[in-house]
Amino acid sequence: MNEQSRIDASEALIADMGRRARAAAAVLAQTPTEAKARAICGAAAALRKAEASVLNANALDMARGEGNGLTPALLDRLKLDSDRVETIARALEAVAALPDPVGALIDESRPPNGLKLSRVRIPLGVIGIVYESRPNVTADAGALCLMAGNAAILRGGSEAVESNQAIHRCLVAGLEEAGLPADAIQLVPTTDRAAVGAMLRASGLIDIVVPRGGKGLVARVQEEARVPVLAHLDGICHSYVHSAADPDMAVAIAVNAKMRCPGICGAMETLLIDRGFAEPEGLVDGLVEAGCEVRGDAAIRALDDRVVTATDTDWDTEYLEPIVSVAMVDDIDAALAHIARHGSGHTDAIITDDADAAATFLNAVDSAIVMHNASSQFADGGEFGLGAEIGISTGRLHARGPVALEGLTTYKWIARGEGTTRP
Amino acid sequence: MNEQSRIDASEALIADMGRRARAAAAVLAQTPTEAKARAICGAAAALRKAEASVLNANALDMARGEGNGLTPALLDRLKLDSDRVETIARALEAVAALPDPVGALIDESRPPNGLKLSRVRIPLGVIGIVYESRPNVTADAGALCLMAGNAAILRGGSEAVESNQAIHRCLVAGLEEAGLPADAIQLVPTTDRAAVGAMLRASGLIDIVVPRGGKGLVARVQEEARVPVLAHLDGICHSYVHSAADPDMAVAIAVNAKMRCPGICGAMETLLIDRGFAEPEGLVDGLVEAGCEVRGDAAIRALDDRVVTATDTDWDTEYLEPIVSVAMVDDIDAALAHIARHGSGHTDAIITDDADAAATFLNAVDSAIVMHNASSQFADGGEFGLGAEIGISTGRLHARGPVALEGLTTYKWIARGEGTTRP
Repeated sequence: MNEQSRIDASEALIADMGRRARAAAAVLAQTPTEAKARAICGAAAALRKAEASVLNANALDMARGEGNGLTPALLDRLKLDSDRVETIARALEAVAALPDPVGALIDESRPPNGLKLSRVRIPLGVIGIVYESRPNVTADAGALCLMAGNAAILRGGSEAVESNQAIHRCLVAGLEEAGLPADAIQLVPTTDRAAVGAMLRASGLIDIVVPRGGKGLVARVQEEARVPVLAHLDGICHSYVHSAADPDMAVAIAVNAKMRCPGICGAMETLLIDRGFAEPEGLVDGLVEAGCEVRGDAAIRALDDRVVTATDTDWDTEYLEPIVSVAMVDDIDAALAHIARHGSGHTDAIITDDADAAATFLNAVDSAIVMHNASSQFADGGEFGLGAEIGISTGRLHARGPVALEGLTTYKWIARGEGTTRP
Repeated sequence: MNEQSRIDASEALIADMGRRARAAAAVLAQTPTEAKARAICGAAAALRKAEASVLNANALDMARGEGNGLTPALLDRLKLDSDRVETIARALEAVAALPDPVGALIDESRPPNGLKLSRVRIPLGVIGIVYESRPNVTADAGALCLMAGNAAILRGGSEAVESNQAIHRCLVAGLEEAGLPADAIQLVPTTDRAAVGAMLRASGLIDIVVPRGGKGLVARVQEEARVPVLAHLDGICHSYVHSAADPDMAVAIAVNAKMRCPGICGAMETLLIDRGFAEPEGLVDGLVEAGCEVRGDAAIRALDDRVVTATDTDWDTEYLEPIVSVAMVDDIDAALAHIARHGSGHTDAIITDDADAAATFLNAVDSAIVMHNASSQFADGGEFGLGAEIGISTGRLHARGPVALEGLTTYKWIARGEGTTRP
């Protein structure tokens, strides 16, 4: 096929899937919680029962991935074993146990015209998920969309195609067992990249696209999409150690924020130390001793000769590795200015015992998540009590920070009258 | 200038205005309610004081409009007089009296990890407003954005350029009197249409664009925009008279929904009459007697020989005139199917005394506003108790239905710890 034929074929495919998803979404919007939960638990049971065939499918993906020279990190993300299948099944059951947001009353009012007004949560509609190697996303994302009453169109990476199809069959088995339309969770049956483009242009068919994967994928989706996107591009998270910070707490939080798991989006990437903080050496020492490479400005390098030089690009870099950039700042205003200039709107924290400084920081920093005396590693839907997450959003509209079931809903206004007409 | 130079100049202009708006937005996000209200009341006072120069500016616009052959309807929208200036000033004061949404606590929680979590409303950021002839939008939209803590970039129509500039000067006077940055409300100083294109592509500079005007404008904005858009394209509002409707109530609501003000987006455009409803003739008669042209299907035409034939396009037409399309439907499912196919997601109503039928309809119709025993003419921010509206949204994300101050905000998560690190 030539390029244009591939694009046309993908658009026709996505248009058809979109129409079927829309029809399924109309059913899901009216489906009681119990049926949605039964479908998801049924999928978990089907997955356990199909473990052998899921692992066989995954073995095909792994063999092809090894042949194609995937990195060990990518192969590890792709790999399933008995424990990982059980983890996926349990995650499904956890989603099924979450409170259903659909139908929840947001607020109500009685304007003087006599109407009884209420705003009630309803599903968003049709959600597109575009993701890379991890096959568990097939189950997680499908179940989250379903539990919030949405139809899902899943487009996994080509490296996991066999695994995704095997897991998807279990989701469909759960849907059918619960009497729900199989089109409620569809898997795009082609690995042609043109299908992603068609999803991103599918205004009116897909209500929102959630990219799950590396920065390259998210950047492409944000660049090309004509439909709304829920995502974050970077997690350049800052911790600012204020002059009134407790030194021990500052070290504990900084080391945890960077080193607990350096590769997650909530990991600290830049540490800002106030010139008035008494023990900056201890912070640098704590990070170096924990195995972190510290890249500092001149003031930080003067504290410890194990600090290497931070260049201009370091302040805009999401390392996702045991590396941190560290700058000395004159005061809280300088810290705020640094974050406004270099931050990515994800998660930024202040460490201080001064309540006024904390209030100033929490108010002024314009990020999805702001923290006081806590580690940015908490930036996660599970840790925030949401039970799961479809992703973390640094966008300003609709839903910000960790997004789970509520973020996959919208609302309608209901107006009840008694023959009420407008004068 | 050639086309490309015009585009480049517009992009440079909007980029500069966007950067200044972003800087102003950072100040506004921290501005207390009183200062925002003082700026808006100051603008109202400045407007009253500048009445003569505003009316002179408007006279220039009117003379040019007459010379350019604007229709009487457009000239009426454009025209200001002493009463209309006073109306604008009072509308400003009404916005200044609205409750400030910024800083409001949405919810809070205490997950087991020890964090104290809260979600707090913050301004959206920078709002672009693209509007046509009515100069009052300059004041209304600027004040609503400001009261919710946002910077506004206003782009009015070329036919109102002098009036808009005169009103904008009053807004700036109010800002300066309250010590707020003049860049908080900027008016695009060119009527080049390329400036609208530049606004629509200004990702990262403008957070959301609100088009205010006719369908042509909204369609262009929705088609071209790379930034999110808050709008509705059509208001094809339905009233469904169920078999268990009270006949007198049905006539009263149908006539009000269409004829009170046929040109507003909440006006009924299609009436669906259940085959089981006892007195369909009375509905048709009521509409005809009120001066409405009734276009019906065969069953409706059989009721009254004043009914003209509805063609296929009628069911998808927003008349905004004293014309209504009327169809007989077999039952509530047929009514729901008609609305799902032909509705625009704006406002749809059921008239019935049957609580079950009402619940089914309110649940199943997927529109921004659904109503029971009430006139769709209530679809309005003022009537919904919001005090004003920046527009009505039929989109599914962020804000739906009438959007006022709350819809011009977003939220951030605040996490408070006590040296809390993640295990």
